[in-house]
Amino acid sequence: MKILCINPNSSSEVTEGIEKICKEYALTDTEIEVKCIKEAPLGIESYHDAAVSVKYLLDKFEEWKNEYDGFIIACHSDIGVDLLRELTKKPIIGLGEASMLLALPLGHKFSILSLKRKKIPQKEDLVKKYGLENRCASIRATGLGVVANYKEKREKLIQEGEKAVKEDRAEVLILGCAGMAGLDKEIEKIVGVPVIDGVVSALMLMESLIRYRVLTSKVGKYL
Amino acid sequence: MKILCINPNSSSEVTEGIEKICKEYALTDTEIEVKCIKEAPLGIESYHDAAVSVKYLLDKFEEWKNEYDGFIIACHSDIGVDLLRELTKKPIIGLGEASMLLALPLGHKFSILSLKRKKIPQKEDLVKKYGLENRCASIRATGLGVVANYKEKREKLIQEGEKAVKEDRAEVLILGCAGMAGLDKEIEKIVGVPVIDGVVSALMLMESLIRYRVLTSKVGKYL
Amino acid sequence: MKILCINPNSSSEVTEGIEKICKEYALTDTEIEVKCIKEAPLGIESYHDAAVSVKYLLDKFEEWKNEYDGFIIACHSDIGVDLLRELTKKPIIGLGEASMLLALPLGHKFSILSLKRKKIPQKEDLVKKYGLENRCASIRATGLGVVANYKEKREKLIQEGEKAVKEDRAEVLILGCAGMAGLDKEIEKIVGVPVIDGVVSALMLMESLIRYRVLTSKVGKYL
Amino acid sequence: MKILCINPNSSSEVTEGIEKICKEYALTDTEIEVKCIKEAPLGIESYHDAAVSVKYLLDKFEEWKNEYDGFIIACHSDIGVDLLRELTKKPIIGLGEASMLLALPLGHKFSILSLKRKKIPQKEDLVKKYGLENRCASIRATGLGVVANYKEKREKLIQEGEKAVKEDRAEVLILGCAGMAGLDKEIEKIVGVPVIDGVVSALMLMESLIRYRVLTSKVGKYL
Amino acid sequence: MKILCINPNSSSEVTEGIEKICKEYALTDTEIEVKCIKEAPLGIESYHDAAVSVKYLLDKFEEWKNEYDGFIIACHSDIGVDLLRELTKKPIIGLGEASMLLALPLGHKFSILSLKRKKIPQKEDLVKKYGLENRCASIRATGLGVVANYKEKREKLIQEGEKAVKEDRAEVLILGCAGMAGLDKEIEKIVGVPVIDGVVSALMLMESLIRYRVLTSKVGKYL
Amino acid sequence: MKILCINPNSSSEVTEGIEKICKEYALTDTEIEVKCIKEAPLGIESYHDAAVSVKYLLDKFEEWKNEYDGFIIACHSDIGVDLLRELTKKPIIGLGEASMLLALPLGHKFSILSLKRKKIPQKEDLVKKYGLENRCASIRATGLGVVANYKEKREKLIQEGEKAVKEDRAEVLILGCAGMAGLDKEIEKIVGVPVIDGVVSALMLMESLIRYRVLTSKVGKYL
Repeated sequence: MKILCINPNSSSEVTEGIEKICKEYALTDTEIEVKCIKEAPLGIESYHDAAVSVKYLLDKFEEWKNEYDGFIIACHSDIGVDLLRELTKKPIIGLGEASMLLALPLGHKFSILSLKRKKIPQKEDLVKKYGLENRCASIRATGLGVVANYKEKREKLIQEGEKAVKEDRAEVLILGCAGMAGLDKEIEKIVGVPVIDGVVSALMLMESLIRYRVLTSKVGKYL
Repeated sequence: MKILCINPNSSSEVTEGIEKICKEYALTDTEIEVKCIKEAPLGIESYHDAAVSVKYLLDKFEEWKNEYDGFIIACHSDIGVDLLRELTKKPIIGLGEASMLLALPLGHKFSILSLKRKKIPQKEDLVKKYGLENRCASIRATGLGVVANYKEKREKLIQEGEKAVKEDRAEVLILGCAGMAGLDKEIEKIVGVPVIDGVVSALMLMESLIRYRVLTSKVGKYL
Repeated sequence: MKILCINPNSSSEVTEGIEKICKEYALTDTEIEVKCIKEAPLGIESYHDAAVSVKYLLDKFEEWKNEYDGFIIACHSDIGVDLLRELTKKPIIGLGEASMLLALPLGHKFSILSLKRKKIPQKEDLVKKYGLENRCASIRATGLGVVANYKEKREKLIQEGEKAVKEDRAEVLILGCAGMAGLDKEIEKIVGVPVIDGVVSALMLMESLIRYRVLTSKVGKYL
Repeated sequence: MKILCINPNSSSEVTEGIEKICKEYALTDTEIEVKCIKEAPLGIESYHDAAVSVKYLLDKFEEWKNEYDGFIIACHSDIGVDLLRELTKKPIIGLGEASMLLALPLGHKFSILSLKRKKIPQKEDLVKKYGLENRCASIRATGLGVVANYKEKREKLIQEGEKAVKEDRAEVLILGCAGMAGLDKEIEKIVGVPVIDGVVSALMLMESLIRYRVLTSKVGKYL
Repeated sequence: MKILCINPNSSSEVTEGIEKICKEYALTDTEIEVKCIKEAPLGIESYHDAAVSVKYLLDKFEEWKNEYDGFIIACHSDIGVDLLRELTKKPIIGLGEASMLLALPLGHKFSILSLKRKKIPQKEDLVKKYGLENRCASIRATGLGVVANYKEKREKLIQEGEKAVKEDRAEVLILGCAGMAGLDKEIEKIVGVPVIDGVVSALMLMESLIRYRVLTSKVGKYL
Repeated sequence: MKILCINPNSSSEVTEGIEKICKEYALTDTEIEVKCIKEAPLGIESYHDAAVSVKYLLDKFEEWKNEYDGFIIACHSDIGVDLLRELTKKPIIGLGEASMLLALPLGHKFSILSLKRKKIPQKEDLVKKYGLENRCASIRATGLGVVANYKEKREKLIQEGEKAVKEDRAEVLILGCAGMAGLDKEIEKIVGVPVIDGVVSALMLMESLIRYRVLTSKVGKYL
C-alpha cells in the first residue's frame, strides 16, 4: 500500500520528525511518503495559517489524489480533512481524530496537550465535532509553538501532562501537535500513563483502513 | 505478536467464522488463536448469558493472561472488557468498541445492526458508556439470533441496513454481533455504504496497540 | 455605520437578492454594501466550493478590513467566519449563526430548511458547534440548489416547512441558504409559523453589535 | 415602534438605571417606556420575589398588552417571559435570554456575573432551558444585592470577571442583573473582554424583532 | 405523619380522584389531606393557569406551612415546587418529578402521556430541568383536557401508550396529569408495561422522605 | 411484604450494619432479611470483586427468587442489578440508583462520596448509565476501604463532604458505599446538607414499588 502523509506546514524540522516516526512504525508493506506544503506557514497556529495551507493543499491534492491509497493530514487540528474526504473516496485521516480514537480503549478519559491558550477553544470544537466531549478530561495549553527546542517541549509536556493526570484525572495523554512527534515514549515513562502520538495513530489507523479495503461513505456528508 | 481472541459463547460455528476472518486479515507477523468458552451458552443474548460466560472467563483468563500480548473479546456487547483491563495491563478490546472506533472516520454517523429488540437498550448503554451517542444514527434490531443461517442473516442485514441509511441517515453500518462476521463486504456492495465487522476492527486495533507498545492506563479506572 | 455584506459565491442572482433584502431592512443610518467573490463557484454546496471561496476571501479581506465597521458572510454555512474573527476585532457574523439566534426567542425549537441531503450533516456540525442541538427540531433537505427558480423554491420550502412543523414539532423555520432570501414572509403566511431569513437576521444582529460598540473577544479563540 | 420595558421589581434606582440605558441606546424611531411593578419587592432575589412580582404582572399586563409592539422583562431571570408569550403574540424578551444571544457571536464561551450564591443554580436552570450549557463557561456569584452602591458593584464585577476570564476561560462576560446596568463599558475596559448588558441586549433584540415583523410562534409552547 | 396534598386547580372531580388514590395507597400512619385552590382554573393547561394558581397558593401556603410535615403539589407540571421549597425546609414534591423518579428503576426509558400538543414543550422543559432527557423515550399528547370523561381518557391513554411502546420504545408509561389518576392499573393491564401515576408516586416518595427525616437542602438553590 | 437485601460482599461487619439500618427504617409490615454472599470478597472494590460476587449470586438467586417480593442489592455500584431484573419481574434495586433518586428532590445537585480514586470512573459510568450526569456535582474519593473503622470513616466523609459543598456546590451528599451505612445523620449535622444513605433509600424505594404493585418492564431491556 502507498500512503501519502501531508504535513500542512512548511517546517522541514517538523517534516523530518514525521518522516522518522513513519519509518519507525510503518508496516514493511507500507510505502509511505511525507510531503509538506512549502508555501504554508512554519506551523498551523491560527485560522489564518490553516486557510493559507488549505489554499495550496486544494491545488496540490489534484495531482496527488490518484497516486496513493490513503492520505494522512499530519496536523492535529485536522485541517482540510472534510474537504479531502469529499474529493476522493480513499481514506483520509487527521492526527486529531486518529489520536483520540487510539486513546479511547486505553483509559477512561484523555487529555490533549496543546500549544498556546488560543488553541484550546479550537480543540474543544474539534472534540465536540467528533462527539467525544464526554471522554475528554481536559485540553491543556503548554505555551509551546509548533517549532520549539526539544528540551523545552519535553519539560512543558511533562509539566502539563502531570497536571492533567492529577488535577483533571486524565488516564491517557495525547500529544496535540505534529511537532511533538517522537516525545511520546519519554513522557509516558515519566508521567506514568499511555501517551499517544498523532502521527503513529494516523499511520496505523490508515494502514488498517486500507488493509480492510473500506472507503469513505459517499451517501451523505462526503458525497 | 501473539493475540488471543476469546469467543465468549460456545458456538463452534461462530468460533469458526471468527477464525476464518482472523486468518484473512491478520498481519503475517500476527499469531492469532481463537478460543471459545465452551461452558458458555451458544450465544450471548441476555445479561444471564453474559454472566455465565464471564463466570468461566474469570478462571480461564488466569491461565491465558501471561501467554499473549493482547486479548480480543469477540462479542459485540464487550462483556468482560473492563474486568480484563483490570486484571492485566496488556491491551484488551471488544468488538463493540473496536467497530465503533473504526466506523467513525468513514462517515458522519453509524448505525448498529443488532439481534433482537431486547438488545437495543443494552447497545444504547454501551454507546453511552463510550460517549458516542452523538455519532450513532440508530441501533436496529434484525430479529436474528446469534446463530442463524446465512441466507436469513444476509436478508435481514440488508433490509435493516437499507432502512438505517434511508430513514436514520446512517453513513456507515456496523455488524452488531460476532455471528455476523464475514457478511460485511456483501452487505456493503448492496447497501452502498461501508460496513464494519467487529472482528476485523478488533484485530486491527489490537495489532496497532501492540505494534505501538501502549498498555492500558493504570492510574484510575483499571488500577 | 458601514457594513460589508460578503456573498461568498459568484451568483449575481443571489447577490441581487441579498442586496434587495439589505436595502429593505437596513436602518437609515446603515450604509451597506454587498460584494460577491466572483472567482468562487455559483453556490457553496460542498466543502470544495467553500475552500475555493475562502481562498479568494483571504486576499480580498485584507483590502476590505479597514473600510467597514462590521462584516456579514452571506452564507448559511458560516464559511470563513472564524477566520475573519481572527483577522479583525470588528464584528463578523454569518447567516447560520444569526438566523439561529433570532429564531430562539420566537418558539421552543427551530428547523432549518436546507438544500440537498448532503448539507444535513454539515448543518448538524454547525448547530453542534454553536451548542444549539437541543433547540433544533430538525434539519430538512429541500433538494434545491443554491440557484433555483422562484416557484420551485416556494413549493419545496412550503412542503418541507409543513413537515417540519407537523412531524418534527418545529415552532420556527429558518431559511438555510442565502439563495432563499425574500421568501420568508410568503412561507410564513402559508405555514403559519415565524420564518427567519439569514440575511435579515445577520443585518440586524450586525447593526446591534455596531450600535453597542462591542468587538470580538481577543483573549482566546480569536486572539 | 412602541416598546414597554417592564422592571419587575419596585426599586426606583433600578428603574432609573434602565431608563437611562434605554434612552442611550434606543433607535430614534423607538418610543420606549419603562414601568416597574411597584407592589413587587425591591429586587427579584428569590422564587418568592419572582412569584410576588408575577402575581401583579398578571393583572397589569392585561392593560398594557394592546398599547405596545413588544415587551421587555427587565430582569435577568426572565421571570414571566413564558407567561407573556402565551398571552400575546407580540415579541417578549427577558434580559437573560437576550444577553446570552448577544454574547454568543463575540467569543467561544460566556460567563454570567450574578448576585448571591443562591442564584447560581437558578441561572443554571435558565441556561439549560435555553439549551446553552455548552457555551457557558461559568456562572459566578459576586455576592451583590440587586441594589448596591456603585463602587461595590464595580469592584466585585471586576474581581469575579477577571476570575471568569482566567480560571474559567470565559471570552465574554454577561452582567447578570438589571441592577448592574451601566457598568458594562467600564468593566470591559478593565477586564479586556466584551461585557454584555441585559437591558441593551433586550432593547436591540426587541427592535430587531419588531422591525422584522416577526411574532411569537403560536403552534406549540405558546399557543 | 401529616401530609398536605395541594390540588392547584379547582376541579372537585380531580380533587376527589386524588383523595381516593391517596386513601387507597397511604400508610396507616399517614394522615393525608387534599386541598384545592378554589380560586384557580378547573385545570392547569397553560402558563396563565399556572400563574393564577400560584398567585393564590402564595398566600394560602403561609397558613398551611406549619401544620404539615410535607407537601405534595398534585400537578404534573410541578408548578410552585421551587417556590415552596424555598419557603420551607419540609419536603415538597410535585407529580412530575415523583413519577419520573419512580419510573426510572422499572425500565430503560419512560414516556409521558400528556394532555394537548401545547403541553409537550413544557414537559420537555421539565424533563430537561430534572436532567432526565436521556431516560425519556417521548412525550405524547393525548388531546385530552384535565377534565374529561372516563371512557375517553381510557381510550386515548391506551392509544398513545401503545404507540409510545411500539414506536418510541418506551418501557414504562407515566400518566402526565393528576386528572388521569386511577387509570394506571387498567392501562397497565392492556398495554403490558408498568404505568406510573403521579399521585401515588408523590405520596410514596413523600412518605419516604418524612420517614427518613430528610429536609430540603438550604445551602444553595432553596436558601 | 418480604424483601431480601443481598449484601454482595462477605464482610459480616457490613452485613450487620445493613441489618441494623434495615430494622431501624423498615415499615412494621415489612419482613426484611439480609444475606451476604459469603464466597465473595470482603468488599466490592474492583471489577474483579464484582465478577466473583456475581458468579455466586447467579446460582443463589435461583433459590431465592421465589421467596421474596423484591430484592435489594446492597452495593453502591449496583452490581448484578440488570441481571436480576432479567431473571425475575419482581422489583430489583441497587443502592447507587436508589440513593441518587432520593437525593434528586432535595437539592439542585448531589455529590457521591466514594471509596478510592479508582472508583470515580466507575461511578461516572453508573451516573451516565442512569442519565443523571447533569444532576451530579462531583464524585469524590475519600480513600476509604469498604471496611474501615468508624472514626476514620466519619473524618474522611466530613472532609470530602465539606469540599463537595464548598468547591463543587453540591447541595446533597450521597454515601457511596454500603459500608458507610449509619453515618448519614451524623455527617448531615456537621456538614449541613442532607446526607443520603443507599440502604435506607433502597429499602424505602423497594417498599414503595411493592406497595404500588409495579413490576419490572418486560418489553425491552429486561425481557
